Amino acid sequence: MEAVEAVLTGKYPAKNHARRVAQYIKKKNPDASGVLYLEGQKTRMIEDNDETHPRQRRYFNYMTGCPLPDAYFTYDITNDKSTLFIPPIDPESVIWSGLPLSEEEALALYDVDVVQTSNEVAASLARPNPTATVYGIADQVSDHITFLQFKSTDLTLLKEAIEECRVVKDDYEVALTKKANAISTIAHTAVLKAVKKARNERELEGLFIEKCIANGAREQAYHGIFASGEAAATLHYVKNYEPLEGKLNLLLDAGGEYSCYASDITRTFPINGKFSKESRAIYDIVLEMQHTCTNMLKEGVVWDDVHLEAHKIAIDGLLSLGVLQGDKEDILKSRTSVAFFPHGLGHYLGMDTHDTGGHPNYADKDTMFRYLRVRGKLPAGSIITVEPGIYFCRFIIEPFLQDPVHSQYINFDVLNKYWAVGGVRIEDNILITKTGYENLTTAIKDVAEMEKIISES
Amino acid sequence: MEAVEAVLTGKYPAKNHARRVAQYIKKKNPDASGVLYLEGQKTRMIEDNDETHPRQRRYFNYMTGCPLPDAYFTYDITNDKSTLFIPPIDPESVIWSGLPLSEEEALALYDVDVVQTSNEVAASLARPNPTATVYGIADQVSDHITFLQFKSTDLTLLKEAIEECRVVKDDYEVALTKKANAISTIAHTAVLKAVKKARNERELEGLFIEKCIANGAREQAYHGIFASGEAAATLHYVKNYEPLEGKLNLLLDAGGEYSCYASDITRTFPINGKFSKESRAIYDIVLEMQHTCTNMLKEGVVWDDVHLEAHKIAIDGLLSLGVLQGDKEDILKSRTSVAFFPHGLGHYLGMDTHDTGGHPNYADKDTMFRYLRVRGKLPAGSIITVEPGIYFCRFIIEPFLQDPVHSQYINFDVLNKYWAVGGVRIEDNILITKTGYENLTTAIKDVAEMEKIISES
Repeated sequence: MEAVEAVLTGKYPAKNHARRVAQYIKKKNPDASGVLYLEGQKTRMIEDNDETHPRQRRYFNYMTGCPLPDAYFTYDITNDKSTLFIPPIDPESVIWSGLPLSEEEALALYDVDVVQTSNEVAASLARPNPTATVYGIADQVSDHITFLQFKSTDLTLLKEAIEECRVVKDDYEVALTKKANAISTIAHTAVLKAVKKARNERELEGLFIEKCIANGAREQAYHGIFASGEAAATLHYVKNYEPLEGKLNLLLDAGGEYSCYASDITRTFPINGKFSKESRAIYDIVLEMQHTCTNMLKEGVVWDDVHLEAHKIAIDGLLSLGVLQGDKEDILKSRTSVAFFPHGLGHYLGMDTHDTGGHPNYADKDTMFRYLRVRGKLPAGSIITVEPGIYFCRFIIEPFLQDPVHSQYINFDVLNKYWAVGGVRIEDNILITKTGYENLTTAIKDVAEMEKIISES
Repeated sequence: MEAVEAVLTGKYPAKNHARRVAQYIKKKNPDASGVLYLEGQKTRMIEDNDETHPRQRRYFNYMTGCPLPDAYFTYDITNDKSTLFIPPIDPESVIWSGLPLSEEEALALYDVDVVQTSNEVAASLARPNPTATVYGIADQVSDHITFLQFKSTDLTLLKEAIEECRVVKDDYEVALTKKANAISTIAHTAVLKAVKKARNERELEGLFIEKCIANGAREQAYHGIFASGEAAATLHYVKNYEPLEGKLNLLLDAGGEYSCYASDITRTFPINGKFSKESRAIYDIVLEMQHTCTNMLKEGVVWDDVHLEAHKIAIDGLLSLGVLQGDKEDILKSRTSVAFFPHGLGHYLGMDTHDTGGHPNYADKDTMFRYLRVRGKLPAGSIITVEPGIYFCRFIIEPFLQDPVHSQYINFDVLNKYWAVGGVRIEDNILITKTGYENLTTAIKDVAEMEKIISES
């Protein structure tokens, strides 16, 4: 982590992000000149309540690294000049919250050329700019802002440009993701050590969130899944309060967020410290899916192919257990394995847990690829989750059992032995490189090691 | 807590709330007939992200006790008939989330007369109702809903009615508040025991949130304040990550939410287990303010008078320490004590931390009452926070020091000894009764007891 901390002592490379986004726009539009315009999140009240939403807009954060609400940003393409506009001092607010960040402090903190106060934004945009275009994001332009002085206004290209640029992470973003991963690993390990004695899922969720906050990840990247027993078969399980007694396994899918960057880690472990025979068999298949798919990764690999490979390993494994029966090519073609592995192999990870630029096709007629959140080649510098799973979910499997196309390949009697396994998923965060990959996730997944830690706790 | 748990085994008294709200409307409008119409929170995405906002609309919760998003509610005033409309089964969603609540299950869980699915709402409102009024809440009526079949539409009275009815809590709501308080007390005590060894504020915040979640309060009622040293003087301190080393006191203002009902508890304690002389002196004054004000409470007491009493005790205390000097009546009249106790004595507590119906006057020219969130008489059944504080905040006190009206009453030399105290606030949640009050908060505030627990930890 020393190398990570060393990178993070510098500034978030906002200026370079602005340049990359401008380059993208110029590639689409070679004569592009003018101004990129962005607004930060607004201070606003939750409906019926007086708390605010603090989540910074990701587009804004990418170009500024600044978490302040009610801030604005411009980037002058021609002059390569970025300006951050921060809220001015509000004397009333000082009583309650103390002094806000000054312009000098902001300039020292953020990688921008100029800092002004936000009451100057409108005037700065009102200077005549008769040959230039202003690029903004639709529905993220305040009423008091006008673009009348520009030759033209483009409210679509900037969003696309930022979304595409975000796919390839720089060293600073990788370091933030590693930091988020390191914190989440502390939290995952704490749960591993606590699972045998815990009474219910919510104690484990509390513990996970505690460790994240205590180590610097105030926000969770997403609503974690703490699913015991058959609940692990519910892919978007949100209850997180059921008792653990009598359940075989815990599926733990949770990750902290660090400086707006997400981690997303899943582990599945035996609550009593020893996998049942059936659980172990499923775990071994999923671990092989995860291992083999991860080893395929490097720049230019087509994600669809990796996802397909995961299904092939799942089919081989379920055939060897007797849950599936018949010819493996026929099973693959009929898409019967989707009954047990219904979701995509993974997604880009960044400021959003499901990060931008994946170009999924949720209308794909091929059920095996419909929920795959990334399609096509992976560039070096992208970070992707590899998260295969096998589930025994009655709602998902039932329609397959009633369809003769699929039911011929499923052995009911064997299947019935596996419901209690619930589901197994193993998920790491992987950085794609020119020659291969780097696994950013270090949480324990080796069976012997997991079982030892739980048994000894 | 057994009595509390016994109450909570029943249903949330939604039907009775609907009747009370209808009564309020009839009092304003004796001929009132027709339908009360409410919509629950919508499933929607956080901007730029694919997670949803789960916080149920409070108006809806009050009339249904139902936390489901995308639900609707009608109450037929004339026929005293309530109907809850819940989302129908979405086959796509079942794959990810399992089966939703059925109509039968909802009827068993919630105190309503009829449950239907939400695709029936529009049709139910489209039946001719030529003599009736429909009462809704502005900006909380979906586009697909029309009120054309009603004689008239009123989009203001229902909100007012619910807000006023919410002030007086029934036994069930009191039990929910007690439960939230009991959970938060566990969390407060855990922090008390951990403060001596913790390294920073965020470890304590993590611990507090852990204990809340583990005991059933998944959400915090508000963003907690974990302020060490002089940070305690910042009333809306949000950082919660500073080191504790070298600081005197921790001001901890945090509370969990249980089934939509808030707790709101503040304690201030010495980080090393022993108050400094100055800290103890300030603590004793605030404790006396809290004690005396609480003892004044019963049905019909004017909250402004209680707030004034708190200021009088603060003035007496600060005079005895020498921070203030001069005649106590003059000091009171000049409002100089506002420099040290700038906020209101408390607010109603319920589904919102700052609950409805307090009728504050934020434009009050009298600075002593400007931020008082409740004005006038307290009814039996209301729950109010009693949260006096004394703070040494440079931003707040500085303007008083520069104004001769006030500076004559402040002794600079003595004041200078108190900056390190930061601020002290003590806050309990109090139920107003016909004959007095019930303190719902049991977190420790006795100095000897606090110091013993910290020292021995």
